[in-house]
Amino acid sequence: MAMLGKTYERQDCSIAGALEAVGERWTLLIVRDAFYGVRRFNDFQAHLDIPKAVLSDRLNGLVEDGILARTPDPAHAGRHLYELTRSGVELWPVIHSLLVWGGNHRRQNSRVFRHAQCGTRLSENGRCDTCGVTPGPEDLITERRRGYRPTRDDPVTQVMRQPHRLLVPIET
Amino acid sequence: MAMLGKTYERQDCSIAGALEAVGERWTLLIVRDAFYGVRRFNDFQAHLDIPKAVLSDRLNGLVEDGILARTPDPAHAGRHLYELTRSGVELWPVIHSLLVWGGNHRRQNSRVFRHAQCGTRLSENGRCDTCGVTPGPEDLITERRRGYRPTRDDPVTQVMRQPHRLLVPIET
Repeated sequence: MAMLGKTYERQDCSIAGALEAVGERWTLLIVRDAFYGVRRFNDFQAHLDIPKAVLSDRLNGLVEDGILARTPDPAHAGRHLYELTRSGVELWPVIHSLLVWGGNHRRQNSRVFRHAQCGTRLSENGRCDTCGVTPGPEDLITERRRGYRPTRDDPVTQVMRQPHRLLVPIET
Repeated sequence: MAMLGKTYERQDCSIAGALEAVGERWTLLIVRDAFYGVRRFNDFQAHLDIPKAVLSDRLNGLVEDGILARTPDPAHAGRHLYELTRSGVELWPVIHSLLVWGGNHRRQNSRVFRHAQCGTRLSENGRCDTCGVTPGPEDLITERRRGYRPTRDDPVTQVMRQPHRLLVPIET
């Protein structure tokens, strides 16, 4: 269910439909973190450094829109895990294309992405030119770009000092 | 220059950088229209059906951020044309990936995209599988999906009843 101010009335295009689900402020950064393997409220909160009320609202919206699935956290009674659904995983090309554009036109990417099977760096159009395929995110390993010094030091940032396969849960 | 509420403080990732430029409500729909060849304020306004003040704000932001270039309109003294810069044209993969996701998960795409050189429909990852290339938007023709009945009847919608090459100016 879309909310007032979030919908694009009288725009029947599928881009508008996508933006109704992921166009709100912070939403795509939460989805990015979910690709990295962040699953817990506190980890999202510390890594994104956003107000808890906003995070809570966005997580609820993503669950409602079928992009994240919420399940009980076996390690913490009363808390939840948030993981990308199949529909959420299909947002990878959106995340990757924003990352490429931002890296070319705003600030250098802090991370690089390699095809897990061969180690080749992903090309800008998301292909592995060695294997001639467009790998899904589950076949990608992300690592910190050489020379990059992170400005943050939260638990998620610490875990991601090491190469990390996308969608593999991050345990902080 | 980013404005308050638009920036992501303390997020040094390039995705956040991209979202600072194109993450605001309506912005990517304006960019989509610019790919279709819309160049004039009145055409954006009629096609998007948004308040003029919002459109004006977003166009100014996109010019400031180097995504659109503003030039005097030779046909209308005192008015302007807005066209994608080179940096703006490089947003095509963002637009296309949102369109693919929205078409799969929200509402069927109203348009299809073909490689101009061979007529092959673009695959979901943006490739032309016949030619084995990822065409730029200038090499794409968009046409209304068969059976689709538009809900709008503004001048831009009317022109786009016919197949139209991306980035070729739409004259209403």
